[in-house]
Amino acid sequence: MEVKIVKKVLDANDTMAEENRKLFRDKNVYVLNIMSSPGSGKTETLVKSLARLEPELKTAVIVGDVCTTNDADRLNVTGTHAVQVNTDEFGGDCHLAAHVIRKAALDLDLESIDLLIVENIGNLVCPAEFDIGEDSRVVLLSVTEGEDKPLKYPVMFKLCSGAAVLNKVDLLPYLDFNIDEAEDNIKSINPDIPVFRISAKTEEGFDDWLSWIKDVVKSK
Amino acid sequence: MEVKIVKKVLDANDTMAEENRKLFRDKNVYVLNIMSSPGSGKTETLVKSLARLEPELKTAVIVGDVCTTNDADRLNVTGTHAVQVNTDEFGGDCHLAAHVIRKAALDLDLESIDLLIVENIGNLVCPAEFDIGEDSRVVLLSVTEGEDKPLKYPVMFKLCSGAAVLNKVDLLPYLDFNIDEAEDNIKSINPDIPVFRISAKTEEGFDDWLSWIKDVVKSK
Repeated sequence: MEVKIVKKVLDANDTMAEENRKLFRDKNVYVLNIMSSPGSGKTETLVKSLARLEPELKTAVIVGDVCTTNDADRLNVTGTHAVQVNTDEFGGDCHLAAHVIRKAALDLDLESIDLLIVENIGNLVCPAEFDIGEDSRVVLLSVTEGEDKPLKYPVMFKLCSGAAVLNKVDLLPYLDFNIDEAEDNIKSINPDIPVFRISAKTEEGFDDWLSWIKDVVKSK
Repeated sequence: MEVKIVKKVLDANDTMAEENRKLFRDKNVYVLNIMSSPGSGKTETLVKSLARLEPELKTAVIVGDVCTTNDADRLNVTGTHAVQVNTDEFGGDCHLAAHVIRKAALDLDLESIDLLIVENIGNLVCPAEFDIGEDSRVVLLSVTEGEDKPLKYPVMFKLCSGAAVLNKVDLLPYLDFNIDEAEDNIKSINPDIPVFRISAKTEEGFDDWLSWIKDVVKSK
């Protein structure tokens, strides 16, 4: 019974995701769905990335959290248009679903946007199962979290169609973290995925990471 | 429809949790449910804590992950008895439910255990909603994750009946993290909760944290 209902929810989500995908294609907007654990640095990475992309790309962000508008407040200072979605309105959902993205997207001026970034809720399990109509997914992993996270949360890393980002590399000298092993673990789950090593704090590694974003947006 | 089914699942879980609670009371076992984001240091904290508790308390651990037995392998070297539960057998569940804990607990020699620790799946949203029959809950937050996590994940911090632990304080000199603000945020959600500041790496703060565990176990 429970399994059947879950399947029904996911089927309905997939249908709405396809409608979103059509809408974004019609408006010529590239959509990136960014996912990670809580506290891996999604917002800081976006704050720094969008400030540097802004001259070339018109961007907007839909940012999901169970509670608070902290992240949208931080993002709005970059010149992007950030819209906060709080899932406590929907019962404290642990992921962003396609219908939530549709509602938020229709409030944006899609005609004037090249790149829409969805900053998903901090959670390495549930968001992976919900297609929101994105063009690609980016999974962020902080080097403070341990090398084995790709093996422990394989669905998230396997379904990541865009790129994997290892963040907070400025902390490596103070950690017992083997970054090559972490990258090997990612590649063992998803062999062809590009992996970027960055620090949102120092912007180390940002040239390659931002080039990748610009390339995928242009390729649409 | 979906909401009704979710309520039914949670009601069934609560019933099983009460049965677990009765079982643990009959066997005189104190049960701690430890929750956090992925990579906050639950396993390392337990490895170091259990090695020091072992002379005074007989312990066992049920450790949950979607995949891998890495954590149980790490815990078993401490002398505790660690049992790994992988939720990919149950469709990749993002939390440990009461019936899963019951099945794992019945494989343990409960008569010989004083303290059973459940290391929940790394996730700050879903595990909070599932009573597993524990005596109290501990939420762990790494200081690498940002001060506002208690405000973003209030259900987890509000329903935490035991203690909150701020881990990885050895990294504070390299972070822009205000630990007093983090503690204030925890207390704004859950005013009476004790908060411990520890480093699982250096064992800083362990005396108070381990005293607290010994006191709650004795109080049962």
